[in-house]
Amino acid sequence: MHLNQQQILAADRKFRLNLINSLTGIKPANLIGTTSPEHGTNLAIFSSVVHLGATPPLYGFIMRPLDVMRNTYANIKETGVYTINHVPLDKAQSAHQTSGKYPEDISEFDECGFTESYIDGFTAPFVEESPIKLGLRFVDELSIKQNDTHLIIGEIEHVLCSDEYVDARGYVDFEQADIAGIGGLNRYYRLSLENEYPYVRLSK
Amino acid sequence: MHLNQQQILAADRKFRLNLINSLTGIKPANLIGTTSPEHGTNLAIFSSVVHLGATPPLYGFIMRPLDVMRNTYANIKETGVYTINHVPLDKAQSAHQTSGKYPEDISEFDECGFTESYIDGFTAPFVEESPIKLGLRFVDELSIKQNDTHLIIGEIEHVLCSDEYVDARGYVDFEQADIAGIGGLNRYYRLSLENEYPYVRLSK
Repeated sequence: MHLNQQQILAADRKFRLNLINSLTGIKPANLIGTTSPEHGTNLAIFSSVVHLGATPPLYGFIMRPLDVMRNTYANIKETGVYTINHVPLDKAQSAHQTSGKYPEDISEFDECGFTESYIDGFTAPFVEESPIKLGLRFVDELSIKQNDTHLIIGEIEHVLCSDEYVDARGYVDFEQADIAGIGGLNRYYRLSLENEYPYVRLSK
Repeated sequence: MHLNQQQILAADRKFRLNLINSLTGIKPANLIGTTSPEHGTNLAIFSSVVHLGATPPLYGFIMRPLDVMRNTYANIKETGVYTINHVPLDKAQSAHQTSGKYPEDISEFDECGFTESYIDGFTAPFVEESPIKLGLRFVDELSIKQNDTHLIIGEIEHVLCSDEYVDARGYVDFEQADIAGIGGLNRYYRLSLENEYPYVRLSK
């Protein structure tokens, strides 16, 4: 199969959405938790979280301000904080369910069967059922003018993770933590550790 | 384990690098192919490709202009085009090897055992061994001032993929294509399709 851009743009809309959303490869399955003083907590699935740097620890994710995830955006802008929680494979269906367009005053925690948990001094809700939970503070947003999306940049303030998934080198075992990966918009993948290769040093 | 930002920043540098690189979750394994009229072809592994939109088909990836991947950046700016090629699981070790600091005139295609392939009217080299190959044209770059990285934005001009991995809906089967996922800086994961859930429609 060889499609050029003209053929991609002329294809059926749903086919194009699925194909282009799939062709980046495997994506992380993350639930982003936020809260609003007025409307309560919100939880939404994202697959666009990307590492920007370790010092300071910065992550980004892609947001369409006007789409279904607008509550997440509004809450982050209002409170300055959010959580990123990895989706356990056995909760993938519940996590996927957070992508529905719930009314503002309905919490996806309740609707989709997740439990809020909190730490002192941090207002955003973590997902109790998640084996890896991160607390972030909003830092900046960059506008991608070509399609009106935004790169939301945040700094990691808290890492909550069971010791058993992190080794002394800082490596995290996704297979043992049993977290999911996402393909396209609808598919959830199991992750099995296949190999580990050392940092590449070339001889002169 | 609960680490706050102070503890993350005070941790051993390599521990922090591994941990923060790992904690986004699973990442795609992509080889980016470029060429320079002066120095020939270049191939480098990236795990930060992210979907920005389907209409037009836009992808981004994160680049540190001054690091080992600087040839990729220079070549994209010079020629305007690049390829994104998915890493087959059985070539993960060779793909990882492209992260070494090779001299500018050495092609990672030759050094790491990959074969260049081309299509008419597009100058960037594809990876013959890759089951999913994309040809992109540079569109824009956004500067992330917090850590001097850049989001490189490109438009998909070509999709090259065997029919057997794409169904009539545009879904791509990563398990059948046997492509790899990356955890942190060093780990390669096998992807097994676990489940597929429909678009979430809520009743009124």
